[in-house]
Amino acid sequence: MSIVLGPNQYGKAEVRLVRVDRDTARHRITDLSITSQLRGDFRATHESGDNTGVVATDTQKNTVYAFARDGVGSPETFLLRLARHFLQEPQISGGRWLAEQYGWERIAADPQPGPGVGHDHAFVRGGAERRTALVHADSAGPTVLAGLRDVTVLKSTGSEFAGFPRDRYTTLPETEDRILATDVSGWWRYEQSFVDTAGPEEYDERFAAVRSILLATFAELHSLALQQTVYAMGRAVLEAYPDIAEIRLSCPNNHHFLVDLDPFGLDNPGEVFFAADRPYGLIEAAVQRSAADDTSAGSGAPAGSGAPAAEHPVWSTIGGFV
Amino acid sequence: MSIVLGPNQYGKAEVRLVRVDRDTARHRITDLSITSQLRGDFRATHESGDNTGVVATDTQKNTVYAFARDGVGSPETFLLRLARHFLQEPQISGGRWLAEQYGWERIAADPQPGPGVGHDHAFVRGGAERRTALVHADSAGPTVLAGLRDVTVLKSTGSEFAGFPRDRYTTLPETEDRILATDVSGWWRYEQSFVDTAGPEEYDERFAAVRSILLATFAELHSLALQQTVYAMGRAVLEAYPDIAEIRLSCPNNHHFLVDLDPFGLDNPGEVFFAADRPYGLIEAAVQRSAADDTSAGSGAPAGSGAPAAEHPVWSTIGGFV
Amino acid sequence: MSIVLGPNQYGKAEVRLVRVDRDTARHRITDLSITSQLRGDFRATHESGDNTGVVATDTQKNTVYAFARDGVGSPETFLLRLARHFLQEPQISGGRWLAEQYGWERIAADPQPGPGVGHDHAFVRGGAERRTALVHADSAGPTVLAGLRDVTVLKSTGSEFAGFPRDRYTTLPETEDRILATDVSGWWRYEQSFVDTAGPEEYDERFAAVRSILLATFAELHSLALQQTVYAMGRAVLEAYPDIAEIRLSCPNNHHFLVDLDPFGLDNPGEVFFAADRPYGLIEAAVQRSAADDTSAGSGAPAGSGAPAAEHPVWSTIGGFV
Amino acid sequence: MSIVLGPNQYGKAEVRLVRVDRDTARHRITDLSITSQLRGDFRATHESGDNTGVVATDTQKNTVYAFARDGVGSPETFLLRLARHFLQEPQISGGRWLAEQYGWERIAADPQPGPGVGHDHAFVRGGAERRTALVHADSAGPTVLAGLRDVTVLKSTGSEFAGFPRDRYTTLPETEDRILATDVSGWWRYEQSFVDTAGPEEYDERFAAVRSILLATFAELHSLALQQTVYAMGRAVLEAYPDIAEIRLSCPNNHHFLVDLDPFGLDNPGEVFFAADRPYGLIEAAVQRSAADDTSAGSGAPAGSGAPAAEHPVWSTIGGFV
Repeated sequence: MSIVLGPNQYGKAEVRLVRVDRDTARHRITDLSITSQLRGDFRATHESGDNTGVVATDTQKNTVYAFARDGVGSPETFLLRLARHFLQEPQISGGRWLAEQYGWERIAADPQPGPGVGHDHAFVRGGAERRTALVHADSAGPTVLAGLRDVTVLKSTGSEFAGFPRDRYTTLPETEDRILATDVSGWWRYEQSFVDTAGPEEYDERFAAVRSILLATFAELHSLALQQTVYAMGRAVLEAYPDIAEIRLSCPNNHHFLVDLDPFGLDNPGEVFFAADRPYGLIEAAVQRSAADDTSAGSGAPAGSGAPAAEHPVWSTIGGFV
Repeated sequence: MSIVLGPNQYGKAEVRLVRVDRDTARHRITDLSITSQLRGDFRATHESGDNTGVVATDTQKNTVYAFARDGVGSPETFLLRLARHFLQEPQISGGRWLAEQYGWERIAADPQPGPGVGHDHAFVRGGAERRTALVHADSAGPTVLAGLRDVTVLKSTGSEFAGFPRDRYTTLPETEDRILATDVSGWWRYEQSFVDTAGPEEYDERFAAVRSILLATFAELHSLALQQTVYAMGRAVLEAYPDIAEIRLSCPNNHHFLVDLDPFGLDNPGEVFFAADRPYGLIEAAVQRSAADDTSAGSGAPAGSGAPAAEHPVWSTIGGFV
Repeated sequence: MSIVLGPNQYGKAEVRLVRVDRDTARHRITDLSITSQLRGDFRATHESGDNTGVVATDTQKNTVYAFARDGVGSPETFLLRLARHFLQEPQISGGRWLAEQYGWERIAADPQPGPGVGHDHAFVRGGAERRTALVHADSAGPTVLAGLRDVTVLKSTGSEFAGFPRDRYTTLPETEDRILATDVSGWWRYEQSFVDTAGPEEYDERFAAVRSILLATFAELHSLALQQTVYAMGRAVLEAYPDIAEIRLSCPNNHHFLVDLDPFGLDNPGEVFFAADRPYGLIEAAVQRSAADDTSAGSGAPAGSGAPAAEHPVWSTIGGFV
Repeated sequence: MSIVLGPNQYGKAEVRLVRVDRDTARHRITDLSITSQLRGDFRATHESGDNTGVVATDTQKNTVYAFARDGVGSPETFLLRLARHFLQEPQISGGRWLAEQYGWERIAADPQPGPGVGHDHAFVRGGAERRTALVHADSAGPTVLAGLRDVTVLKSTGSEFAGFPRDRYTTLPETEDRILATDVSGWWRYEQSFVDTAGPEEYDERFAAVRSILLATFAELHSLALQQTVYAMGRAVLEAYPDIAEIRLSCPNNHHFLVDLDPFGLDNPGEVFFAADRPYGLIEAAVQRSAADDTSAGSGAPAGSGAPAAEHPVWSTIGGFV
């Protein structure tokens, strides 16, 4: 019997890095959780505990902190720096670097100690949502994903769900007016042309713009199904930015059930809801350019076929959708 | 041997209520988690399972939803309505009603569908922090606390810690410039005079004002110890509002350790930090009016003594500080 | 206006200590999360940032680790050592020391490397439940509580709930057979006589015995209300051990709702359930000895009255019930 | 520009099902969280909100409960039943069904109410770990994975880490004796031959056997690297069971740092440790049979090459490793 080592990776997860930029009295903070994972020829450590080629996970952590001394820039550019560094080692053929960024806002202060809105060096956390970035590198070079997690949104009207098939196990009534609520999580993949030229400012601006498009589309589309909303959000992003190759979104349907107040002699015209925890719907979709437009995946479908390109290998490191 | 039932309470916890106010096209949403706990003569159910007097926890939940049909107002006034309702039952002598409120902001939209800033009926969650309210009722009548939980703040400078005693187990160096970060949680108790007259708007405005004072004080005080910051935050609230009798704050010290970059040949002038999870400091303090000023606690210290009044019974239901 | 500092405490929370006893090849591990909080005259640090008397929280952490060098014993005795140490400082008049202990079991191994059941130095975590201990000290000396958290139990029959009052808001049907499920959390207070003589083994044995009584009572009582079960659990502990003065239990009612399969043409004779997350019932009760039996609380009710003694001050540091 | 819908799936997540088998007085409980996700031709709902083919997520939930009326069996066989049911719909071409199972043990009782060890109908939760199962179906038919999550294990000795390369960013000392601790999570894929014949008992027995092998290997291997332990665990499973095609494991390195007691004048011979939360190492690896042995993946490497087979499509729904 022949048993062999398959795909493998190792590294340090959730390195919590807070970088303070203090060249002026008006500080900036960058708050990140970074995961570094290396791939390559690591058979010796798996098979016999020979660690000759194993860049210690502690060393990976140290490298994150040392590199932050020069500034972080955007999470995408910081991860690209880490990737380039580790790929210099001959035994390392690829890897996966992930960042989650937490948002901070300046505390309002009066009078302001410096120019601009808000305090110079005091901040308040902006929410549960996180900005995310991922760099995946293999023999074909680096791929950059940007994303967000758990942007919780809700519409109090403008959402229906009807026309679905009814079988023996269907009890859900159709509705023409419901609360639609979800936690938007997703990843989008930049074309190589963007990666080749973008600096930290471009990544930051693009992130903010994509987030705005996702929220505005959620708000403005009259929704007949969460699937329709998810697809429209992704489509709007691709329409706005040709250098975004594809986007994947994962959106729970955070059910808000209209409470039956009839037993208490009361009506309930869409006003009193029970917000449920579990179970929840889960809607996941990729929005892509047809193969004719996307030349980034080598083994794709025939050009001009109108079919999606073959799956980019980065997605196999994400799993499902997020 | 004589074994007896001691203090007890029961109810329904974390009733998730979302109320949509939709009298105009510009909706408002109120998102709450409500806990109702009743106290009284419940020996029969404990000793023999005789439930004759037990208002079912399911009934308590239903009451929350039914009452929301008339609108929620502020969490404090909604809890007071619940308290008055349940206290009509002869076997119920008191209780504790708790609310946590989640914040939502309108999604920016262009063009705006209605007057005002942001979308009419689409919202995004504002953060992990929660507004809290608590009504405690016993034979002396209702007491109202308002509060907040997990308002995460950080100062990137303006914080020292030095001058502490050094014993055999002291290794911490003194520092004249550190990151100070905490999650502010606290409760303040309104004087009866405020409770007697305040409506939902007064509670909402007061909450916003107290939160602003806490944040501004955190930002503006040059801190020699987190204790000093905590006390100053509480003191500022009491100075601003005579009808707040006392405030209790619980603030973890979310340590941010300066990373030693020396082994890598780099300095670190207050720029690169490791944000630790555990352990963390924990600073808790009450700020009160001296007994001469507070007549709300019956069995307090002699008037004019300058000593704090005796502990108000509501705090025994909070435990420690939050 | 006179604003003053009220009750306050500070310290280091969740110090994660793992102690390996390795005097023989058969190792033992003790896995604890320890919180140390000091009380005393700390006005100077609060009012002006004068830290002259402030034993740094970092020093408290170091003390935990240094003391562990001599062994931990039981969590109760370890906390008592910490309390005695810190109370030597003149400015410290009291404190609160808390431990949560995580359980580990030996991994089964064949052949066993040493005597006894299971591996000598390899372990698997035993569950989400934690053993807890708390030492509270003030001018009256130390008080010791022991407890447990989140011991999740379930009965698939032998539980009813009926006979409760029905008002306008009552919709719950009566039931003669339901699932009863809860996460048992509680604290019991040892009499001074026990504290004076008990060593680590006595604390360990007593903890195991109380846990067994709680579980056996939950299992064996035919329950007419969760209140009845909670009281019976507490009463059984007090009946078994005269040197336990009182016990407080907090038990959510983890609802398991029978699924209505009627729309699918199926009956459901108590077999298919939906386990809900929120809301949940919450039942909390203290079981005490009548005042005649308990002389530990100085300002209690008149001896022989049959009424519970006055509340022991330790409970004000717990808040509610757990 | 041509923008198209890419891969997508939708369903109901975390359906909490508790099944009581009560044909005799000795009850059995099965406690599951089930997620059902469907794939197929759902362009209409995404592009225009036409839900004609959309089996509602609520219907998927109802189906889970209705099917449970006939008994659950093992999680794997229950998911296979669900898969077969949903695949009857013409618009559904595949799907992914996931189960997490929580363990319960009988409460010890004396005297036992029935035959066997432990109480007939009272149970206590066995831990944080979960058994998992996944059925993935596409045009090639169903694939069955079994797994486990968060089996937390620790060795107090018998673990080294040395011989790793040292670069500018390496500060970690080599160690010949450390604590090794991890939360084992993993998935193994059954060969079609096993799926074709196995009933619930075979799945249950196999799960228990694989879990035992993983734990015993962790315990018994003298570890020179966590990678070595992970690979050995996987290899032992494949050696024991030819009808397991491959296994993937993901194991954090839960760091336990030896506390430096030197400043306190104390040594620390491997006894006092700080258990850290973040960051943590993360070791992930697949153990497979070489292509010559595995004919289950159609587009694999040439037979007899000794190289791993091409990646089975089920893994693209897992992402990374777990």
